[in-house]
Amino acid sequence: MASLLQAINDPAELRKLPRTQLKALADELRAFVLDSVSRTGGHLSSNLGTVELTIALHYVFNTPYDRLVWDVGHQTYPHKILTGRRERMATLRQLGGLSGFPQRTESGYDAFGTAHSSTSISAALGMALAAKRKGENRKAVAIIGDGAMSAGMAFEALNNAGVADCDLLVILNDNDMSISPPVGALNRYLAQLMSGQFYAAAKNVGKNVLRVAPPLFELAKRLEEQAKGMIVPATLFEKFGFNYIGPIDGHDLDSLVPTLENIRHLAGPQFLHVVTRKGQGYKLAEADPVAYHGPGKFDPAVGIVKPAKAPKQTFTQVFGQWLCDMAERDQRLVGITPAMREGSGLVEFEQRFPERYFDVGIAEQHAVTFAAGLACEGMKPVVAIYSTFLQRAYDQFVHDVALQNLPVVFALDRAGIVGADGPTHAGAYDIAFMRCIPNVSIACPADENECRQLLTSAFEQDHPVAVRYPRGAGVGAAVAPGLQALPFGKGEIRRARTAPDAQPRGVAILAFGTLLYPALAAAERLNATVVNMRWAKPLDTALLLEVAARHEALVTVEEGCIAGGAGSAVAEALQAAGMVKPLLHLGLRDEFIEHGDPAKLLALQGLDAAGIEASVRRRFAEAVERLQPALKIVS
Amino acid sequence: MASLLQAINDPAELRKLPRTQLKALADELRAFVLDSVSRTGGHLSSNLGTVELTIALHYVFNTPYDRLVWDVGHQTYPHKILTGRRERMATLRQLGGLSGFPQRTESGYDAFGTAHSSTSISAALGMALAAKRKGENRKAVAIIGDGAMSAGMAFEALNNAGVADCDLLVILNDNDMSISPPVGALNRYLAQLMSGQFYAAAKNVGKNVLRVAPPLFELAKRLEEQAKGMIVPATLFEKFGFNYIGPIDGHDLDSLVPTLENIRHLAGPQFLHVVTRKGQGYKLAEADPVAYHGPGKFDPAVGIVKPAKAPKQTFTQVFGQWLCDMAERDQRLVGITPAMREGSGLVEFEQRFPERYFDVGIAEQHAVTFAAGLACEGMKPVVAIYSTFLQRAYDQFVHDVALQNLPVVFALDRAGIVGADGPTHAGAYDIAFMRCIPNVSIACPADENECRQLLTSAFEQDHPVAVRYPRGAGVGAAVAPGLQALPFGKGEIRRARTAPDAQPRGVAILAFGTLLYPALAAAERLNATVVNMRWAKPLDTALLLEVAARHEALVTVEEGCIAGGAGSAVAEALQAAGMVKPLLHLGLRDEFIEHGDPAKLLALQGLDAAGIEASVRRRFAEAVERLQPALKIVS
Repeated sequence: MASLLQAINDPAELRKLPRTQLKALADELRAFVLDSVSRTGGHLSSNLGTVELTIALHYVFNTPYDRLVWDVGHQTYPHKILTGRRERMATLRQLGGLSGFPQRTESGYDAFGTAHSSTSISAALGMALAAKRKGENRKAVAIIGDGAMSAGMAFEALNNAGVADCDLLVILNDNDMSISPPVGALNRYLAQLMSGQFYAAAKNVGKNVLRVAPPLFELAKRLEEQAKGMIVPATLFEKFGFNYIGPIDGHDLDSLVPTLENIRHLAGPQFLHVVTRKGQGYKLAEADPVAYHGPGKFDPAVGIVKPAKAPKQTFTQVFGQWLCDMAERDQRLVGITPAMREGSGLVEFEQRFPERYFDVGIAEQHAVTFAAGLACEGMKPVVAIYSTFLQRAYDQFVHDVALQNLPVVFALDRAGIVGADGPTHAGAYDIAFMRCIPNVSIACPADENECRQLLTSAFEQDHPVAVRYPRGAGVGAAVAPGLQALPFGKGEIRRARTAPDAQPRGVAILAFGTLLYPALAAAERLNATVVNMRWAKPLDTALLLEVAARHEALVTVEEGCIAGGAGSAVAEALQAAGMVKPLLHLGLRDEFIEHGDPAKLLALQGLDAAGIEASVRRRFAEAVERLQPALKIVS
Repeated sequence: MASLLQAINDPAELRKLPRTQLKALADELRAFVLDSVSRTGGHLSSNLGTVELTIALHYVFNTPYDRLVWDVGHQTYPHKILTGRRERMATLRQLGGLSGFPQRTESGYDAFGTAHSSTSISAALGMALAAKRKGENRKAVAIIGDGAMSAGMAFEALNNAGVADCDLLVILNDNDMSISPPVGALNRYLAQLMSGQFYAAAKNVGKNVLRVAPPLFELAKRLEEQAKGMIVPATLFEKFGFNYIGPIDGHDLDSLVPTLENIRHLAGPQFLHVVTRKGQGYKLAEADPVAYHGPGKFDPAVGIVKPAKAPKQTFTQVFGQWLCDMAERDQRLVGITPAMREGSGLVEFEQRFPERYFDVGIAEQHAVTFAAGLACEGMKPVVAIYSTFLQRAYDQFVHDVALQNLPVVFALDRAGIVGADGPTHAGAYDIAFMRCIPNVSIACPADENECRQLLTSAFEQDHPVAVRYPRGAGVGAAVAPGLQALPFGKGEIRRARTAPDAQPRGVAILAFGTLLYPALAAAERLNATVVNMRWAKPLDTALLLEVAARHEALVTVEEGCIAGGAGSAVAEALQAAGMVKPLLHLGLRDEFIEHGDPAKLLALQGLDAAGIEASVRRRFAEAVERLQPALKIVS
C-alpha cells in the first residue's frame, strides 16, 4: 500500500488529497508519531491527541500564509511531520536536531515560538491585527489547551480579542479524558459545557457557524437582546465577545473539516471548542496519559518499563521528601504548585497532606500572591515552581512577597540547563533576577544532601528565601534523614590549596551550586582552593574576603547567566570592600542555549571539569604554574 | 455641631454609632478627604468614590480581625482616616509620612500592601484559607476596581477562589462614570450588567443574599439544575462559582450596610457588585475624574489651576512627541499601553493615530506578547510601560520577545526613584532584570534630547531594545526636532580630566542615564573624567577599556540598583578583558526606598553631586588628591 504520509512534504500536498483519504492519513500519522517518539523520547500523549486537528487545520487553512500558533507547543509533532520535518523527527530534542517546540528559526510554518503556556491568543491577536492593518486576508489561529486557558494571560487576551474587530480563531483543545484532577472554576465549567452539550453539537454548530447572511442575523440578534433587556449569551466565551462553536469531537475529521471550513468564512473573533483525548489511539497512553506525557524511549508493543535498577534520586525527589517531612514537623507548612504536581515532586505531599496542598492551575502570578496572603496569616508557604516559570510571577515575587518581607520559600526546580526542553525551559536567569531584589535570599545547594539541608535553612527564616536546584540528579550524595539546617548565609572551604608560604598564592574557585563538583575536580589539577559558597545572597562576605586575601586570583563558577549572576555578586562585594583582585566569572554565556544533552551543553559552555580547568589556566597561567609543584590534596 | 469624625480614632468607635448617623459621618469624611488632598496632593477621585463603602465595611466587619484587602490601594484614604491615621494625613506621601497605599508596617488595619493592580483576590483567598485552616472565623474581603478586574491575575484568583470552600468576599468597585474609554470585553460586559440590572437591584439582592436555610436552598437549586440538564448561571461571576449580588449603589449606605450585613453570614465565595462614581461629591472631580485622579495641591473652591508658567517638559512628553513623529515617518509603528494612556504620554498619539493605538487594559503580560505577535508580521511595536510594571510581563519579555529576538521597543517610563508613590512604583531593578537576558539592549538617556535620539536608535534596531528614563523632567536639555539617532551601543566622553603626564591618573566616572549631570558637577570638583555611557547593554567596551587604561580608578553611577546593574556590567566587562582596576559602584542600595521627595531620596542614597563627590573622595582619596593641583576644565 502506498504511504500517504510519505508523499506529504508540504501542507500544499496534503491539501490535494480528497477528504476521504484524511482518515487513512491520520492513522499513518498517529503510527508515525508513536513510532518516532518511542525511539527518541519526547511528548507523546498530547501529540496523539492532536493528529486529526493538525490535519484538519493544514487541510482547511492556507498555511503558512495563514498563521497557526500552538499554545505550549509540545503537541506540534504532527504539525512538524506534515510541514517538511518528517525525516528529521529522529533528531528530536537532540543537540542540533529538531526542537520539541515550535521555533520560528526552525520552520516558516512555526508562526510563533511557544513552550510556556497561555501566550498563543495574544500572539495570534497581534498577527490578526497586523494582517488587518496591512490589508492582508490571512487568518490567525491560536490552538490552546484547557489547562493553558486557566492562566490569566489567556483571559487578558480573550478580553482584548473579543472586542477587537479582526479575524481571529481560538481553538480550545479540551482534553476531556485527562486524568489530572480538574483545577479551578473554569475547568469545572468546561466539564459542564461538555456534559451538557457534547451530543447536541451539530445543532450548536449549525446555529453559530452557518451565518450566511450576517446583517440579517445581527439584526435579529439585536432585537432579541433588546427584548430581553440585556444580553444573556449562552457561554462564558460569548460574554467575551466571541462567537462560540462547539464542543465538537476533535478526533472526527468529518466534524472538524466542515466546521473549520465554515468558520474560515466568518468575520470577527471565533471560538471553537474541540474535545480530544490525550493519548488517543494508543491504549497504554489513553489509560495513563500522565505517564505517557513525556516518556523516554520505549517499545510501543510493551510500553514503558520500569528500570530494573532504581535510578539516582533526583533533586525533585529530595524536595518532595523534605516537604513531607517538614510538613510532619510543622503544621504551618502549606505547599503550592502552579499545575506542576508531578514535575515538582508533590505527589506524595498531596496524598499525605491534601488539606495543605494547593494546585492553583497554570497561574503563577496568583500562586505567589496567594502564598503571600497565607504568609500574612502565619502560615509557612512553600511555592514549588520551576526557575523559568517564576519569571511569570516576577512582579508578585517583588511586590507582594519581597517588599512585604514575607516568609515564603521558593523551591526553584530546573535551575540551570535543562537539556531536551531547551532555551524556553532553561533556568538560567533566576540568580540575576532575584538577587537584585531587597530582602530576598538565594541558596544554591551543591548536592542532594545540601538541598535538603538548605530547604530546612530556608524554611527557618522569617523572610523570602529561594532554594535553586537543577533538573535531574546530582552527584548522588547520600541524603541524611532528619531536618538539619545549614547555617544561614555561610559557605565552607571544601578544598584548600597547598602553599609553601604565607603570601597570597594561587587561585581560589568560588562555586555556587552543583558545579562545585566539576570545580573540585578541576581544582585537583590546578591545586586551587575551592569554596562551596552555598548562598548567592547573602554572600558569605567574611569568608570571601578572607579567601581573597590569601589568593592571587578568584574564579566564580555557577550554572546560571554570568550577567548579574552570583559571580557579579562576588565582584560587587569585593568592590564594596575596596578590594582589588583578579577575577574570572565562569557561567552561562549571554546567549540562549539550545536543546540537547545537558552534559554536552555544560561542556560547550566550558562548565565541565575540563572546561573549568582550561579557563582558569588560560586566564591565570602564572598563578596556577606557581603552585603546581606543591600539588597535593588537603582534606 | 460636634464632629463625628473627630471622635473616631478606631473603627470600634465607628461601630458604636447608630446607623442613622453614618450619612452625616460620610459627609464629614468626604469633606476631610477633599480638604486633606487639596493640601498635600495625592489621589482624589478614587477616594471620594470609596467614602461610603469604607464606612460600611468597617461598620459591618470586625476590622482588623476581619481582613480588608484594597486592590491597588490608592483609594484607601478614607480607610486610613477611620483607622487612627486622621491626624497624619497632612504627612501623606512625604518622607517619613503616611504612604499613599496600604502598608502592613504602617497599620494593623492594612492587611496587605498593595499598589500594583489585581493582587487583592489572591491575597484575600490566602487569608481566607489560612483562617479556615486555623479554625478562625475571620472574614477576608477583597475590594477591586473594574479596571483591575481586567488583569489576568484577577481571573486566576477568581478561577481558584470560586471553587475554594472558604469565606471570601470579593467586592467589585465599579466606577460607572469613569470617562476613560472602556477597554475589553469584560468592561463592556459590566456595563451591560449595570444597564440591565441596576434598578432591579433589590430583587437580586433578595434572591442571592437571604439564604437563611442553606440546605433547603441548595437542594432546590440542585433540582433546578438537574432539570435544566446543566447549570446556566446568571452572570459570568456565577460561572466562576461565586454567589453574585448586585449591582448596588455604592454611595447609598442604606443599601450597602444591610447588604454587607447579610453577606457576612453567608458561607463560601461571595461576589458583591458595587457601583460608585469617581470624584463623588466634588463636582469638579465628578466632571473630570481623570484630571482629579492624582492632583497636586489645589484650592477646593477653585479647582486645579493651570500653572502660569509652563513647567519643564517631562520625559513622558518627550516620548509622546517622539512617538507621534516616528509614527508619521514609519507606517509600521504601533503603540501599545497597558491602561496607561495619560501616564505614558500617549494622549496625542491616540488622537492622531487611533488605528495604531492599542490600550489593552491592565494586562501587561498580554501587552508584551501581543507586541511580539505584531512584530512577527513586520510591524514595529513600541510598548510604553513603566519600569515597575514591566515586572508584570517579565516572562513574556524573556520568552516571547527576547528569545525570538523580535524588534519590539520598550519605552520604560518611571525608571529609578519615583518619589511620592514610593517603593511599589520605583523603577529600580529594570537594568538588572533585563540585562541578564540575551538579545536585549538597554539605553539610558542622560537628558531629554538624548531620550528622543535614543528612542530613534532603539526603533532602528532589529532586536528588542528598552529605553529607560525617569519620572518628571530632566536637566531641561533642548530637544532637537527631527529623528536623529545616536550610534548604537556607543558612549561618549563628556569631560576629560586634566593630567600632567601620560600615566594612568585620576578617576573616571562612568554615568548611565540622568545622573550624568550630578556626576559632571562632582567631577568639576574632583577633576575627574566623565563618560556618558548611554547604553547599559551592549556596553561600549572599547571606550570602557580605553578609559580604564588611562585612569587609576573607575566609578559607575546609575539610578538603579547596584546589585546586577550597569555598574556590575562594567565589572563583568573588565573581568572578561582580564583588566584589574579599582572600581566603585554608586547606585541604589539593596533596600526598598520609601516615598518622599525624589531629590531628597536621591541625596539620601548619596546620588546627588555632593554625595557622588563624597563617595569618590572617600574611596579614592589618593587618586583624587594627586590630580587636584591640575584642576582645570577641559571641554
